Amino acid sequence: MANSEATPRSPCVFSNVLDILGDRWTLLIVRDLFFFGKHEYKEFLSSPEAIATNILASRLQKLVCAGIIDEMPHPQNKSRKLYFLTERGKDLLPMLVEMAKWGEKHLTQTEVMRPLFEVIRRDAAAFQRKVLRDLKNWEKANLA
Amino acid sequence: MANSEATPRSPCVFSNVLDILGDRWTLLIVRDLFFFGKHEYKEFLSSPEAIATNILASRLQKLVCAGIIDEMPHPQNKSRKLYFLTERGKDLLPMLVEMAKWGEKHLTQTEVMRPLFEVIRRDAAAFQRKVLRDLKNWEKANLA
Repeated sequence: MANSEATPRSPCVFSNVLDILGDRWTLLIVRDLFFFGKHEYKEFLSSPEAIATNILASRLQKLVCAGIIDEMPHPQNKSRKLYFLTERGKDLLPMLVEMAKWGEKHLTQTEVMRPLFEVIRRDAAAFQRKVLRDLKNWEKANLA
Repeated sequence: MANSEATPRSPCVFSNVLDILGDRWTLLIVRDLFFFGKHEYKEFLSSPEAIATNILASRLQKLVCAGIIDEMPHPQNKSRKLYFLTERGKDLLPMLVEMAKWGEKHLTQTEVMRPLFEVIRRDAAAFQRKVLRDLKNWEKANLA
């Protein structure tokens, strides 16, 4: 199984998950793949958090190594790459939903997040099915 | 509302949660408070990941500032402190349960995590109720 560390800090599952995902940036790329239909380096770069190019490159590589995302040459331009969530990556969705629920309840938010919060509050399971269906449709169109 | 950053990177809920929790150590302290009955600096220090003293001190402070944990003088020794999860901190439990489920499914684990995985698989809601009940009992005994 892929793990980002050659020698894990401990046998604890939380420690091992954090060795892969525990930083301020990695899950933002996963977020962009899940919720914003982003699949390209320059698309991740344009997210509002303004990730630095070297951090983005290292996190994409880390996510590929951990088997959370995969990459393929862009069909229109072989020098570009398309990134997409693997099944392992898609299984992170329930964790992101819990993050959103916690953040809605406990952090100051601006109006921009309200549509996401409302759709999760209405039916979190249906929301997750829809996100996964949208990813499947993108895959059908692009990974044929 | 407490937020670890004076100027958030973006209005995104995921970004703001990660500004507080997005590193390799913070959630390990939260884990120790939830699952291992740890409440003291030296107890966190003795966890198998061998957190450095300066990192531990900074993360405890960050968690207090974010309102996720609180602190009080130790009843037996005023120079020591007891740390405990606030209601805001306790609301992180569903996220940790999802982390554990993802880790069980996708990472190599050793035998030590099996009891946790089994109890979550059997009834995740009952497991969470038990964890919160245990915390309440500790509070009754210590925060009286």
